[in-house]
Order: sequence, then C-alpha cells, then structure tokens
Amino acid sequence: MNIFQKTESEVRTYSRSFPVTFSKAKGAVLTTDDGKDYVDFLAGAGTLNYGHNNDILKQALIEYITNDGLTHGLDMQSVAKESFLYAFRDLILAPRGMADFKVMFTGPTGTNSVEAALKLARKVKGRSNIISFTNGFHGVTGGALAATGNQHHRGGMGTSMPDVTRMPFDGYLGEGVDTTEYLDQVLSDPSSGVDHPAAVIVETIQGEGGLNAASFEWLRNLEKVCRRHDMLLIVDDIQSGCGRSGRFFSFEEVGIKPDIVTLSKSLSGYGLPFAVTIFRPELDLWSPGEHNGTFRGNNHAFITAATAFKTFWSDDTFEKEVRRKAEKLRNGLQELIRSHGAKTLVLKGRGLMSGIECPDGDLAGDVTSYAFEQGLVIETSGAHDQVVKCLVPLVITDEQIEFGLNVLDKAFANAFAKRARKAS
Amino acid sequence: MNIFQKTESEVRTYSRSFPVTFSKAKGAVLTTDDGKDYVDFLAGAGTLNYGHNNDILKQALIEYITNDGLTHGLDMQSVAKESFLYAFRDLILAPRGMADFKVMFTGPTGTNSVEAALKLARKVKGRSNIISFTNGFHGVTGGALAATGNQHHRGGMGTSMPDVTRMPFDGYLGEGVDTTEYLDQVLSDPSSGVDHPAAVIVETIQGEGGLNAASFEWLRNLEKVCRRHDMLLIVDDIQSGCGRSGRFFSFEEVGIKPDIVTLSKSLSGYGLPFAVTIFRPELDLWSPGEHNGTFRGNNHAFITAATAFKTFWSDDTFEKEVRRKAEKLRNGLQELIRSHGAKTLVLKGRGLMSGIECPDGDLAGDVTSYAFEQGLVIETSGAHDQVVKCLVPLVITDEQIEFGLNVLDKAFANAFAKRARKAS
Amino acid sequence: MNIFQKTESEVRTYSRSFPVTFSKAKGAVLTTDDGKDYVDFLAGAGTLNYGHNNDILKQALIEYITNDGLTHGLDMQSVAKESFLYAFRDLILAPRGMADFKVMFTGPTGTNSVEAALKLARKVKGRSNIISFTNGFHGVTGGALAATGNQHHRGGMGTSMPDVTRMPFDGYLGEGVDTTEYLDQVLSDPSSGVDHPAAVIVETIQGEGGLNAASFEWLRNLEKVCRRHDMLLIVDDIQSGCGRSGRFFSFEEVGIKPDIVTLSKSLSGYGLPFAVTIFRPELDLWSPGEHNGTFRGNNHAFITAATAFKTFWSDDTFEKEVRRKAEKLRNGLQELIRSHGAKTLVLKGRGLMSGIECPDGDLAGDVTSYAFEQGLVIETSGAHDQVVKCLVPLVITDEQIEFGLNVLDKAFANAFAKRARKAS
Amino acid sequence: MNIFQKTESEVRTYSRSFPVTFSKAKGAVLTTDDGKDYVDFLAGAGTLNYGHNNDILKQALIEYITNDGLTHGLDMQSVAKESFLYAFRDLILAPRGMADFKVMFTGPTGTNSVEAALKLARKVKGRSNIISFTNGFHGVTGGALAATGNQHHRGGMGTSMPDVTRMPFDGYLGEGVDTTEYLDQVLSDPSSGVDHPAAVIVETIQGEGGLNAASFEWLRNLEKVCRRHDMLLIVDDIQSGCGRSGRFFSFEEVGIKPDIVTLSKSLSGYGLPFAVTIFRPELDLWSPGEHNGTFRGNNHAFITAATAFKTFWSDDTFEKEVRRKAEKLRNGLQELIRSHGAKTLVLKGRGLMSGIECPDGDLAGDVTSYAFEQGLVIETSGAHDQVVKCLVPLVITDEQIEFGLNVLDKAFANAFAKRARKAS
Repeated sequence: MNIFQKTESEVRTYSRSFPVTFSKAKGAVLTTDDGKDYVDFLAGAGTLNYGHNNDILKQALIEYITNDGLTHGLDMQSVAKESFLYAFRDLILAPRGMADFKVMFTGPTGTNSVEAALKLARKVKGRSNIISFTNGFHGVTGGALAATGNQHHRGGMGTSMPDVTRMPFDGYLGEGVDTTEYLDQVLSDPSSGVDHPAAVIVETIQGEGGLNAASFEWLRNLEKVCRRHDMLLIVDDIQSGCGRSGRFFSFEEVGIKPDIVTLSKSLSGYGLPFAVTIFRPELDLWSPGEHNGTFRGNNHAFITAATAFKTFWSDDTFEKEVRRKAEKLRNGLQELIRSHGAKTLVLKGRGLMSGIECPDGDLAGDVTSYAFEQGLVIETSGAHDQVVKCLVPLVITDEQIEFGLNVLDKAFANAFAKRARKAS
Repeated sequence: MNIFQKTESEVRTYSRSFPVTFSKAKGAVLTTDDGKDYVDFLAGAGTLNYGHNNDILKQALIEYITNDGLTHGLDMQSVAKESFLYAFRDLILAPRGMADFKVMFTGPTGTNSVEAALKLARKVKGRSNIISFTNGFHGVTGGALAATGNQHHRGGMGTSMPDVTRMPFDGYLGEGVDTTEYLDQVLSDPSSGVDHPAAVIVETIQGEGGLNAASFEWLRNLEKVCRRHDMLLIVDDIQSGCGRSGRFFSFEEVGIKPDIVTLSKSLSGYGLPFAVTIFRPELDLWSPGEHNGTFRGNNHAFITAATAFKTFWSDDTFEKEVRRKAEKLRNGLQELIRSHGAKTLVLKGRGLMSGIECPDGDLAGDVTSYAFEQGLVIETSGAHDQVVKCLVPLVITDEQIEFGLNVLDKAFANAFAKRARKAS
Repeated sequence: MNIFQKTESEVRTYSRSFPVTFSKAKGAVLTTDDGKDYVDFLAGAGTLNYGHNNDILKQALIEYITNDGLTHGLDMQSVAKESFLYAFRDLILAPRGMADFKVMFTGPTGTNSVEAALKLARKVKGRSNIISFTNGFHGVTGGALAATGNQHHRGGMGTSMPDVTRMPFDGYLGEGVDTTEYLDQVLSDPSSGVDHPAAVIVETIQGEGGLNAASFEWLRNLEKVCRRHDMLLIVDDIQSGCGRSGRFFSFEEVGIKPDIVTLSKSLSGYGLPFAVTIFRPELDLWSPGEHNGTFRGNNHAFITAATAFKTFWSDDTFEKEVRRKAEKLRNGLQELIRSHGAKTLVLKGRGLMSGIECPDGDLAGDVTSYAFEQGLVIETSGAHDQVVKCLVPLVITDEQIEFGLNVLDKAFANAFAKRARKAS
Repeated sequence: MNIFQKTESEVRTYSRSFPVTFSKAKGAVLTTDDGKDYVDFLAGAGTLNYGHNNDILKQALIEYITNDGLTHGLDMQSVAKESFLYAFRDLILAPRGMADFKVMFTGPTGTNSVEAALKLARKVKGRSNIISFTNGFHGVTGGALAATGNQHHRGGMGTSMPDVTRMPFDGYLGEGVDTTEYLDQVLSDPSSGVDHPAAVIVETIQGEGGLNAASFEWLRNLEKVCRRHDMLLIVDDIQSGCGRSGRFFSFEEVGIKPDIVTLSKSLSGYGLPFAVTIFRPELDLWSPGEHNGTFRGNNHAFITAATAFKTFWSDDTFEKEVRRKAEKLRNGLQELIRSHGAKTLVLKGRGLMSGIECPDGDLAGDVTSYAFEQGLVIETSGAHDQVVKCLVPLVITDEQIEFGLNVLDKAFANAFAKRARKAS
C-alpha cells in the first residue's frame, strides 16, 4: 500500500482509474514521476481549457508571487481583483451584451457558485422551489446536491433535500417530444403538485450526465417558459463555459439571455480554485456578507484569469480555433463510430465537449482503461458511465487530437473484440 | 464609483470596512496600491497563521510552478500530494496520536469540509440529526448552513434546513450551568423531541460567534456525552486549528479525541484554498467519489502546506513561541480592559484567538474603524459584532503586537470619549 | 351576517356555494330548515354512498346508542369493533382475495389513513421518497399534503414538504403516451435525480383532480413498475372505494393487487368519521401505538359500517344495480354533451364517479350555480374547477337521476346562452 | 388468536393493556361482553369528561338521529352547526372574553386541529419556525408530529421534519430555572441558530408527556416572550381543556390570552370525533377551503357538544364540582404517596388531570396491571411510562374515586412488595 492507499480516504476516485503518480504537466501532456507522458483528454474535468501550466499565465503568476502580491485577502479590494474585474467586464461580459452584470465572488468551487445562485433566486423571487433536470450535475454540498441528479452523490446526504423539482431534460422523453411543454403544462396547472419555482437551473451541455447537448430550440423554449412563469433562468456553465463550446459562454450561440450564470473550473485558466456567480444587476439584492466564505477572493486566480482573458479573448482567433478543432475531433469520433459500431455507438456533446456513447458502461470502461495503457488519460461519464468523454484542453494540438483518436480506435477495437470473445 | 462598487455584487463586505485597495503583503503587513502599510490583526480571518507570503513557502511554491509541477489534477495521485500526506501524517498526525487518521480532500473551502464531515457522520451512524451550538459558525452552503447559528446567513437559504438541533454552548445558560447536562438530559429522555443524533459538531473556540472559548471541562463532558449516546464528535478546527490556540489542534490541550476534524483556512499556510476532513480510519465508509469536487486536490496548496509543516512543526519551537505571544497579547488586552472599562469590557478567546467583548457592537465598530484609520486592520465578531477580534498572524513580531495594542488603546479611548460626548 | 359568517372561520367553503341551512336529509334528498328539498348530486363528496340516514343503518345505530353501547374506547377491543372486523373480513376482503389483509384503525379521516400508509411504506422499505401524481389529492395534513397536487392547499403549509416526487398521471402527456414508461425510465436511471421511492400512491379515479379515470392498462403497467423497482403500490380508494366505481374497490375490475389501500369517506356508510388503512400482512411492521390517535376506534361507525356491509355487500345485487345506474347516468351525461357541446364538453370519470369537463371553470360554475337554484346540490372539481361532478349517492333512484340530468340540461343551456350573450 | 389479534394491525395498543372486550359503558363504568364492570380512570384519554353515554346528551343525539337530522354535510350550514356555534359562543367563549374568536372546523381529530393551528400561524406571520417543548405531544400526522416530542412516534415518520425548535418545558432544567429566559435569550440573539418563530405551541399540562403542569408564572412569562418577539401563542388544550383543569380552558386561571387554541377530545361531550381550532378574529386569513377535510363538520357532535355546553356550562356549578373532586382525588393521591413512598413517588398534574410519578415505568406498569385485575382501567404516561395517570371522567362519583384510590393503594402495595421480593 502506498501513502495514498494508506492515508487518503476511500472517497478518492481518479487515482483508481489512473494509478500512477503525476509530477509535471504542460499543455495537453501529463508526466508521471517516472517520466512517462500521457496525452490529457480529461483536462481536469474541464478545468484546464488553456492546458496545463500555460507559459503566459505561469509567467504572470510567478511574477505576482515574486513581488509579494496579496495572496489572500478575503473579499477586500485588491489590485489583482481590480485587474480581473476590468478584464472580465471589458473582454468577456461587455462584448456579449452583459456589461452591467454583477459579479459575485463565491467560495472558489463550482458547487459554491451554484449554492449562491440558488439562494439568490429564492431570495429575489420569494419562493423555494427550483427546477432542475434529469442527469443534471451541480455539485455535492447540501444546497447544490438537491439539484444534482446523480444517485451516488445524493445518497451521501443523509437528510431530506427539499424544494427541487426534477424535470426531463431535452430528449429524455424520446425524439420529437419537447419536454419544455411538460414543464409549461405543470406550471400552468394549479394542481400539478409542482410549486411555483423561483428558477430553473440548467446545463446547456450536461457534462457528468453524459455529454447531453440540449438543442438550441429546446433552450429557447425553456427561456420562454421561464419568462411566461416569472422564473429566473440559471445557466450552470461551470463545465461548458470558458470557451469549451466554441464560444466563451455555452449559451451565446443559442441566443438566450440567462439571468444568472455560474462559472468555475476553467475560469482561473490555470487550474486554480475559483468561481463566480454573475447576474443581472437588478437581481443584486444580497445584503453584505449574506453569503460568504474565507477563500472567496483568490488573488492568484485573479491574476491568471485576467491574463487568460487578455491572452485568449481579446479577439476571436482563439474561439475560431476551438471551433475548428471541435470539428476535427467530432469528425474523428464520427469516423470511429462508423468503423466500430454505427448502430451501437452515438456521438454526443457539442464543441470540445464531445464523446461517444457506448451501449453500456463496461464497454466504455474497457475503452478508457485500454486507452490509459496506451498513454491517453480519458474518462467516462453518464448515468451508467457509458460515455467516453473527450474533454481535451482547448489548446490541444492537431497531432495530439490525432494521437488520441488513434488510441481510441485501437481501444474500441480491443473492447469490441473482448466483448466478442466473451459472447462466443 | 470604482470598479468594485460598479461591478462587484452588493454581497461584498470586507471592502466596506477597509475601503482601500491592497497590492502587496508580507508577514503581518498589508500594503495598499498607494504605498500605505497596515498591520494585520485579521490574518484573513485566521487564514494566514504564518503571515502573508512567507518566504520559505513562497520559494517552494515558485520553484514548483517554475518546474511545471502539476497544478490541477482532480484527486489523482501527485508528487505534491504525496509530500503533503507524508508531512501531514509524520509531523502533525503521528506525534498527536492520530497516525492512522484518514485524510479526505474535500473541495478547498471550510464549508465543504464541514459538509463532508456531516455527511460522513450521518452515513456511518445511519441517523440524520446533528447537534450544533448557539453562536456556532460552520459555513454557508446548504448542509453546513443548517449547523450555523447566524441568522444573517441562515436567512439567505430560502428553504427549510432540517436535521440540526441547536444546543446552548458552554456558558450560554450562565456561569455554573454545565450545558452538556442539558444535552445529556434530552438525549436520555425518549420524549424530549430531540432525535438521536449522528454527531455533535463543535468549535472549541467559536470565532465568528464572538471568541467564545469553551472550558476544557465542558469539552471533556461533551466528549463523554458523545460516547454515552453513541454519537460522533466532530471538532470544527477550521479557524482555531493550525496552531492558533498554541497547539496545532485546538483540542490537544483539552485532552479529548474527536472522531472527525475539519481543517481549512491556514492549512495551506499561504492563504491558498485548501481543506481536509480527517477521521478515525474505521469511519472511512465512503464509496469512491461519493463526495467530490473539481478542486479537491490543490497541488499548490499541497506544496505550501507540506513546507509549512516542515518549517513550523518539526519541533515545538514554533508552538512555544505562539504561546508566548498569546500571553503577551492577552496581557496587553487585559491591560486595555483595566484602563478603559474593567466593568464593561471582557477578555475573550484563547491563545492567539483573543479579543475584547464590548457592551455593544457600536462601540466595537468605533474601535475598529478608528484602528483602521491608525493603520491597523482589525475586525469584530459576535452575534452583535460586539467583540474586537485579534486574529494576528502567529508569526507577528512583538513590535507589531505592541503597535496594535497601542492603536487599540487610543481607539478605545476615542470610542469611549465619543460615547461620553453623546451621552452628555 | 348570520352566525356562520360571524363566527365561523373564513376557511368555510361549501356554505358559500350552497348558502342555505340544512336541517334534515334522507336518501338522495337534503332539506333546508325552511322545508326546501334538494336532490343531492354531491353525497358528501363521496361520503354518502348509501344516501343520507339510511333506515337500516339508522336503526342499528339508534339501537346501539339506546343500549349504551361503548361509544368511545380508543383502540380497545369492543363488541362493535369485533362485528366490524368480521363483516369487513368476511364480506369485503375475503371474497376479493384479501382475507389476510391487516386492518389498521387510523384517526377517522382520509388524510390520517394516507399518513399511516405513507409512514408504513417508508418504514417497511427504509426509504423516504414517495411517488404521487399530478392532480392527485390525498389530504391536507403535513404528510399527506406533500403528496397532494393542489397548489391552493399546498400553499397553506408554510414549510418545505420533502420526499415526494410528482409524476404525470395517465393521459397527462397526451394520448398515446404511457406515462408509466417515464416513471420506469427515471427509476432505471441512476442519475435521473429521482431517489428510489418506497411506494407509489395513486387514485384510480382522481376525484378532486377532475374525475380523471386511469385506464386499466396504465394501472397494470404502474403495478408492474412497482414490482420491477421494489416499491409498494398504495391505492388511495378514499373517494373511489366503497362501491362508487361499481365494485367495492375501484381496482377490482382492473386486476391489480395493491399492497396498501386507504379507505374512508363512505366506509361508515352513514357519514360518520371513519378510516382504515389495510395492507398485506407481511407489511405489518408497526410497533404498538407507533401511529395513534384519540378517535381511531369510532364505535358508532363500526356499527353502521358492519350493517352496511351486511345490507349491501352480502351478494352482488347492489353492485350490479350501481353499475346499471352508472350506465344510465353516463348515458345521460353523454346525451347532454351531444346536445350542448360535443366539441367542448368531455365525459369524465368511471362508474358513479362521473361528470362533464367544461372548457373552463366559469362555465362549470355557472352550471352548478344554476343547478342549485333549480334544486340540485352539485359541485365542480379539477385544477380549474372546470369539471361538473356527479357524485350521486349510489342508492339514488332512477327518477332522481333523471331529475338531476334535466336540471343539468337546463343549466348547460343557460350557461352557454349566458356565454353567447357575453361574446356578442 | 381472536379476530383482533388476527386481523387488526400490530399497531393496536390499548387492547394489549386491557385484553377484554367491552360492550357497554355508562358514566365512569365500562362493562365487558361477559358482564364484568370496570371503573374508568382513563376516560378515553381525556375524551369522556362527561362520562360514557351521558343520558342527556344521548337523548339529544337519539332524537336528532330519529328525526333524520343531517348527519354529514361537509362544511355546509346546518341547524346542528348553528346550535353548536351559538352555544359555544354564548356559553363558553363570551363569558371568557373570547366572544369574537373565530371557530374553524378542522378534520375531527386533535392532530388535525394542531395542523390547522400551525399552518395558520405560519401563514399569518410569514415564517416557518415553531417552538414546541420537551415532552410535548401534539399528534402524529406529519405537521403535528414535527412538534411532538415522543421518539416512538417521531421515528415512524421516515422523513425529515423541519421547522420546529424544541425548548425545555417548565422545570426541565431543574427547580429555580425559568426556561422562558433561555427561550428569550435565543430569540434575542441573532446568532443563536433559532430562526424567528411564527408561534409557540404549548400544553399548560402535558398529558402524554407525564402530567407535567406548567406553573402559572412560567406560562405568563411565556406569553410575555411571545409578545416581545412577535410570536403567536398557541395553547393546545386538546387534553387539558373542556373542564379537566377545573375551568373550561386550562389557561383561564393562569390569566394568559392565547392567540390560537386547539380543542378536541371531550369537545363533543360524547366521545364523538370532533375538533376545532379557534383564534383571534384578526388572524383569520384563511382563504376558503385552504385547509379542508371530509369530516370537518360532524353534525352528531354538534348536537352533543351544544347539549353538553347547555347542561354543564350554563353556570359554574359543574366546574366547582370538578374542582372539589380534583381536591378529593389529589388529596387521596397525596395520601397514597405518604403511605407508599414519600421519597420516590411524586404527585403530578393539576385538576382532574393528576397522577403519581413512579421511579420507573416498571413500577408504574405493575401498578396499572394490578389495578386492571382489580377492576380499574387506568394507564401510564410519561417519557418512560412512569406516571400513573388518573384521567377520571369529570362526572365520576365520590364513591368511584374512593374505589379507585383503594385499588391504587393495594396496587402500589403489591408493586412495591414485588420489587422488594426481587431485590432480596
């Protein structure tokens, strides 16, 4: 037993899929302590959109630390925060018609950002109920967990989790059924048993739920239902935001205007803990300190995030490149599907949040295990861990994409062969 | 309006007490962007026990970053985590008879550590109820907020928060009343209405609640009640741990053996977001990933924390020095009380988590406002913000303590004079 | 203002629809204090299946009272209870293959019977969640209200009502959609967000929800989903039981075998408060007194109920007659629909729990108001009070049915004429 | 196995203590089917204040039934209800300064009356939390159960029961401690963790909790705390009302003015299911039907209750007689204590709601078992079933009291002798 097995809690999980010890990382490559390189198709579950240890961000961070820049200051005003606010407003929010959005620094985790969003919605509307969706994942602290669909996580709570009503996500009732109509119906029906919600929380592309990309039409209809029934629309863009969809926000292309947006994961750009909840200014009914937290201002993250905005989002070069790579990756995945199982494999997701749904989790697990042996860090997601998920760094090179696709090609071949052997 | 007022949410709070913009910090000194120095008697609300930007930690961190050490790796095995686990086990846990404690990396915030502790206790015991105490503060995410006493924060939730029973903390029912007897009584009474709890969560010194230090006898009795009624004892050492009490854990001197301990704030040593929940090995009934979070392994924090353990906790030099300074500070505070209001001011707290309780929050607010004008960053706590709280960095110099005490001396004089003027 | 308006709470409701004072009643006729007769198409919302003050039951009751038979005895053994248990078991349960069902005397109200059913299901299965359906009505005490759909009632609670998941009832998603498939899907999906339920509670014909009769196929599929996912099937037969469907239990014809059944309303046969929860014997895990209540043994009701079983259920004469009348009534309603609005009016319900759905509540209200003026007591139900509900006593005469249908004929004519006038 | 054991649920309880079958009852005497008489010191747990089958009430009821008086009419206006309202207002409410109280007919059970009271308080104040007390019993339906202290009942719920805070009842923290001060303290303390309650619900004499009679001073202080903190005061007078204390309401002598009062048990006077919730008129914010229930107007009970008011409460003869008997009973109990165990036995209760607390439930159980053998029906209450409870009908004769005391004398002698034998 190594120190991890001996001393770290049984709750550890990724170390079971990837039982090596990493020491360094750069771009899309992870390196173990004995020098083995892995191409990273996981990217910290969407936290490393700009890759590991990006040199520009790294330089800014080292310089800041070297100069004894304020590291921790609760939510005091700091030069680092100032630079973040300017860059975020001017380079991200303003060009997207959100210049007046208020920025709330929550505890530096996605779940905390969600907790703040739900609290604010309930406070603003004076109602308790929240709509969330099948297969949605929003975090595992008490308030966010109530909105999360995963039974494995929900079962850990040990108390009732009231005031969330679950609705079927786009496609859940089969093709051709617009599930927002069902939502509209229960909200229009005074004896449906669904209490008038304060808000709807939705991922435009469900990451943990299995790379389920909502159609634009469904999202637009969802927004309409929100307006019709006086509910706030919260987009949880923690995994799908920061460029992963091919735009900064995953909802940009869709043309909807959420009232509240949660951001975390790749927001710092460098893998540092960081989260914000942003919202339309008229919703800013917080009293000072009503929601707080010791680490709600991570100055290191301010520095790297501001640098990332300047580096990647000053013009549209980066997002265009992301979209080009997304097309390349998705074409490659489509090709894999064609060669290995056009009838059983399904292309999932959107942008660089794409993957392949397998008939079951065993097959997907065989694929990712084999891939890891071949030097590819890649994970599954979905209710049955049945989706092979390609969350590549957005800065991945074409060669690395090709390497990954090649590994997956072999991995699928191997997994199907194993299955065929078993069946015979 | 500056960018903070314009773009940051109304929820911001410390920036209202300290309306300056900090750029740098070192040791116990914060420096604004226009070069003004402040002595720090707040220490990130207990997050900066080793001061700002400690040079040894800084060096280790810069070196790690420079070498492209893994920054973000979910909960994968990393060289940085390995070094943390060894240092934590060998330098902190083992010498305190806790060598076999399991370490769980929760989301890097105190509230997340509390959520994990409560979940685990409920899971292990198969019961929902938790005992927490008047004036306790454990965080503001849904699960932790249920255990937090502060109405200002509780009011933000907007849903019922079930399954926490509130009990009076030590001293709450007046001197001479051991409130653990009341707890014992309701637990022994099958129609008390208090459902059999899974655990008790307690701060040995309540920080936000007003520097209420539980007596050792009360804590020992509390432990006995836990054993008698088959409940787990959770010590929330997020603010009082990491040396603040004069020992690494605040409960060491007391002689009690908690089943679960939450740690965060100063754990990284450098102000980086970081938290763990540690517990007796037989409680480790987590299934893999049951409680998770994107930032549950902060490698930068692993590096600084491990370095801090080696630097400050390899022998007892540091803790002795902390205790010496605590005595100095508390003597100074006692002196202030004697000169300014022996009848109305009360010395609160323990170790370097000490302060002065004022008759009301207005007076305390006058003191801290004046102090800030004089170059001292210091805050209040308590139900009515009535306690002037000295959360100095443990590495503070004697001169800085003296400077702070001098400022407070003038601040109290000024506040009482103002009050006298008003009264006349 | 009369004494009712002056002293009775604003919560009173039927006295607003029928602002007269009743003194006597017999069979299907209600008589006011000034001697006016009304034919009763409401039957105490399904409580008076054998009509008002049935002479055989009345005689038995008077005799019992005259002889000083035990009136109140908590849940002690009494001769009256004995006679009820024998009659219930031998005449009702045994012939329906339920001879071994256990009978629990709950507080003498439907909602109490539901509370007991839900508690027992949760206890037996060790899970909290319960499935209930859109437009379901199960009572307004805390536990039952959580399962009730009506917002008007739900809004009165003032606390979170956890641990009930709402599902679409038969037909809710339109024709051709079997909503049990959606239920099956969420229960088969470990990240649907629907926690594994202890039980499903369902009305085979939703009374308050608008006389929505579930198809037999849907109910059978629901039973299959319960078996597949190890959930108990609770049929709430409070309004639809005791013969109203044309069989004693509404599920007899369907061919399903519920695990738990709630009965109240017409159970006493005489309009006396009475309720039982009955269940398969292996579910009887109650400890003595775990669910209790002062009036859980209503001896007067034991006497009238036992007499009712002997009088009406010793052979199949009565139920055949009920089915004949149901056909007569439904044919009449169908005729009304044909003459007044084949396109806008819809026949609802099953057996003598039938009615006409109007395009809106205003029209339905006009119909029932006019009917009352013409000597017919009749009410609406449904989410928008849009269903004119014929809950006639099962003992109603053919002439009384014809009278009622004639009144309704005029009432619809009048209501449509009023509408036409308004539109022009 | 008889039919009760075979067919009735295991939840049955009194039939285990008194395993005989009763057929008739009159005054304070219960008679079994084989002709054995028992003196009734239980009175339907306080439901039979005027004894079994009182002749005057019986005559009125038989006459009403004979004349086909309306038996069931939901909450329609009826001649019977009219007579009840007049009698209740003019004979009970008006003489006690409550002429303008509004009367709400809830479902005919105590627990339903409590549910209505809690809902109304929450609605009026717009807050969720309710204060209830250790050892309080308020019913077992979901809403009321949250306020009930008994673990045996609470454990049956199977869900979280939010929004009730438990406080120590009078005397719970020992003599000389006024527990309303603790309540006042937590409500004055914004970080006590006790959310601002809508109301306090209290029994002036806790019945199920062990005949704990609150001191008048404590109740007055409780009322003051309610006023100070803008909370409604709900007196649950279900067991202690209707004359049991020696006044109609148990709080009359105390001099407090509750905002809401719950009544049930002896309200009908004849053991019929009946309950009301009454409240100050300005609290009547119910919308029509917001809280409802099929049996919320029990016309039989209206008749017997109105007759009881006229018979027993037209002047003060009856209450004086109750107080005389209470003194006689309590003197007798005191005498028993003196002879059997002045050091271990304690007189409990107030008025004709009195009894003897034993050192443990075994002794008390031996006493009541032996008493039953000797022809006395008597039960225990209290957290450990340690209180021998004399809930005699208020109309009991002096001879019957003496008989009961004699039996108890022998029963205590026998129980202590048995104990002595065991110890030796």
